[in-house]
Amino acid sequence: MQNRKILLSENEIPTHWYNIVHDMPNKPLPPLHPGTKEPIGPEALAPLFPMELIKQEVSTEKYIEIPDEVRDIYKLWRPSPMYRAYGLEKALDTPAKIYYKYDGVSPSGSHKPNTAVAQAYYNKQEGVKRITTETGAGQWGSALSFACNHFDLECEVYMVKISYHQKPYRKVMMNTWGAKVFASPTNLTEAGRKILAEDPDSPGSLGIAISEAVERAAMADDTKYALGSVLNHVLMHQTVVGQEAVKQMEKAGDLPDIVIGPFGGGSNFAGISFPFIRMNLEEGTNIRCIASEPASCPKLTRGVFRYDFGDTVGMTPLLPMYTLGHNFVPAPIHAGGLRYHGAGVVVSQLLKDQLIEATSHDQLECFEAGVLFAQKEGIIPAPETTHAVATAIREANKCKEEGVGKTILIHLCGHGYFDLAAYENYFAGNLVKHEVTTAEIEANLAQLDTPEIG
Amino acid sequence: MQNRKILLSENEIPTHWYNIVHDMPNKPLPPLHPGTKEPIGPEALAPLFPMELIKQEVSTEKYIEIPDEVRDIYKLWRPSPMYRAYGLEKALDTPAKIYYKYDGVSPSGSHKPNTAVAQAYYNKQEGVKRITTETGAGQWGSALSFACNHFDLECEVYMVKISYHQKPYRKVMMNTWGAKVFASPTNLTEAGRKILAEDPDSPGSLGIAISEAVERAAMADDTKYALGSVLNHVLMHQTVVGQEAVKQMEKAGDLPDIVIGPFGGGSNFAGISFPFIRMNLEEGTNIRCIASEPASCPKLTRGVFRYDFGDTVGMTPLLPMYTLGHNFVPAPIHAGGLRYHGAGVVVSQLLKDQLIEATSHDQLECFEAGVLFAQKEGIIPAPETTHAVATAIREANKCKEEGVGKTILIHLCGHGYFDLAAYENYFAGNLVKHEVTTAEIEANLAQLDTPEIG
Repeated sequence: MQNRKILLSENEIPTHWYNIVHDMPNKPLPPLHPGTKEPIGPEALAPLFPMELIKQEVSTEKYIEIPDEVRDIYKLWRPSPMYRAYGLEKALDTPAKIYYKYDGVSPSGSHKPNTAVAQAYYNKQEGVKRITTETGAGQWGSALSFACNHFDLECEVYMVKISYHQKPYRKVMMNTWGAKVFASPTNLTEAGRKILAEDPDSPGSLGIAISEAVERAAMADDTKYALGSVLNHVLMHQTVVGQEAVKQMEKAGDLPDIVIGPFGGGSNFAGISFPFIRMNLEEGTNIRCIASEPASCPKLTRGVFRYDFGDTVGMTPLLPMYTLGHNFVPAPIHAGGLRYHGAGVVVSQLLKDQLIEATSHDQLECFEAGVLFAQKEGIIPAPETTHAVATAIREANKCKEEGVGKTILIHLCGHGYFDLAAYENYFAGNLVKHEVTTAEIEANLAQLDTPEIG
Repeated sequence: MQNRKILLSENEIPTHWYNIVHDMPNKPLPPLHPGTKEPIGPEALAPLFPMELIKQEVSTEKYIEIPDEVRDIYKLWRPSPMYRAYGLEKALDTPAKIYYKYDGVSPSGSHKPNTAVAQAYYNKQEGVKRITTETGAGQWGSALSFACNHFDLECEVYMVKISYHQKPYRKVMMNTWGAKVFASPTNLTEAGRKILAEDPDSPGSLGIAISEAVERAAMADDTKYALGSVLNHVLMHQTVVGQEAVKQMEKAGDLPDIVIGPFGGGSNFAGISFPFIRMNLEEGTNIRCIASEPASCPKLTRGVFRYDFGDTVGMTPLLPMYTLGHNFVPAPIHAGGLRYHGAGVVVSQLLKDQLIEATSHDQLECFEAGVLFAQKEGIIPAPETTHAVATAIREANKCKEEGVGKTILIHLCGHGYFDLAAYENYFAGNLVKHEVTTAEIEANLAQLDTPEIG
């Protein structure tokens, strides 16, 4: 009998986050002011984030030390286990070796607490009393609630109203960890009141919820805002995942040929892949790192690389990113965490420089992959996570066709216990293939008047 | 920074189940035929269970080897982690050391797959094609679905109709692992049709669901039935939990003074405690093992030790057990897994012989304990599991009063991700204290005409 799991001990939790910016051949371009279109400095972020996180956002240091207090909370679930997917390999009858790194063991069920705990810590250090954020599907709001609870910070989560009613369990989870959860739009903010005045029955949107959370943070000195993906410091905090995975692959006596993460804004893909990209850059390995995105929201595979806003309304700084246009409205697929028009700045530059790859899958292929994974490995993956599984299956099938035994590593970033309604819809045949047409993408991009990148 | 987790490697998964019957000073009394009231032999169970499980049911061997195929599936989540509850200790300001053994890491989220996998394996070995069972809250049905899927067995789950509609996610989980789930009463069985003829809108009950599952198994040669608690072999399979815990406590350089498990039919309490009771019997340790039951269903603390039926209708053999009477209807508390009128035979004899203790808590105290645990340790416990947490808190507070630093071990047997509606009810103040009166218990027991034990 072979071992299925590769485990690390708590003293092998990484001591530093890895900042890939230090090693990038081309550094990210600067953000631009939304009005003047001139480059802006870190001070522009001061109303929203504590100073240490702003420093990390613009840092080019290679490693940033993880505070002991953060590592101590990481110990509740880290190091997360790595598994060899013997069951899946056998079902696919592939010569490929498949491993998965499972971050669904965290209390909130995904990789998100890796950055939530760090962000809560630095806010606490700088005297902040309250953190606001938005959440759609609920993964990020749950993680931040968990983290704030540990540092005795108040947490206000603006949850898109339609999700608030569709996913009541996520709200209860956040309440259990002491967070206040509001169905957005609310009457608590100018932004919310304006929307409600126009449409008292508004179902809300992530864009509105962001506006509400940001407004609350900007309004009060003791309140800051937190983001769960896209920004450099968020992606960097996730590198604990990949650093552990590097060690675990070594322990298994193996080296991945292919590393795969689902792709929304970049945080889970960055988490698993950046430490392997470092190996490519420094040690001459040739590990393919593949970002797996939904065919209905294909910014990496079919978007353009240009400056664009991070939000729908156009209030944030302009960021150099792969984008479908900030006004792009993705189809209502169940992988809510991947329904974002743009890609984080660092990941975008890496793709531009061909240091990573990207691919896409429609949701039917993803759920099929998720069900097979659940049957062969036990864990039911979150809809977002099924994208990486689908890519792994595609690559493993290619190995079979070509008779080549590659080693594939999946970031299994979250479980689907809160997403079983989505699986139910899939079983009932209610899900359709969502693939956006070229005409739609082009029409959307044609409306963009943000600066192009030469 | 201290370590929070005590981990074992896969080669430390126990190789044998521990059969406490071998070491019991007084062996369990034999079951009686429901009609003749004469002792019955193992052959009476043959229509329902495969021969190897019947052998285990009546075995007095001390150890029974775990087949490699079963251990291989155990590796998907075993050995399960043990944690030192530093956060909870600090919150209670207690000199006690608190540890918890966490079996919620299994794919179905509880300790139940420890026996489900074993039962599915032996059924497969003996050529069975299909296993039937009943489920209320859904933990057992989920575990058996997962297990059957791994051995390519069909699985039919009769789920109490009201739960089927109230907990749709559990059903989807079982479907994902390939099981057929029916809202009981159904039209598929004589028992179901009879109920539906009388009341087409019947919400069902565990008693009815058992009748349906048993009828289906008895009807077909290639179909057997499986139980998730109460029986000797089921309790024995769970001893992998306690055997791992013994090793983990050794690794931590500690020995528990108190071991606590929630109590429904006995399976999770037996799992954690039997290997520690073995130490008491063989090695002269003096570890208190406490079964923690709901105040609304207090068979161990306020029931009587006599022969009684395992089911409501009175069709099963008569078993020597602590019972509130087989017609006892527990209040509709949220810890559905603990709403059973009787206790497993082995656990009952151990209590009779004062080798274990029992205590009870009302559900408000349990949810309060569960929320505190979630806030200090991250994991949100299942309502059943909160009973053990409540007992641990009571004992830790006693340590504080007395200024004694005891070591307490909790079996944290399952997470509450599927039970957040119960937490929501608790937060909303909708839960009431359910404590059964002595008059109710006495009135119920007065109706019993089953044999007394001299």
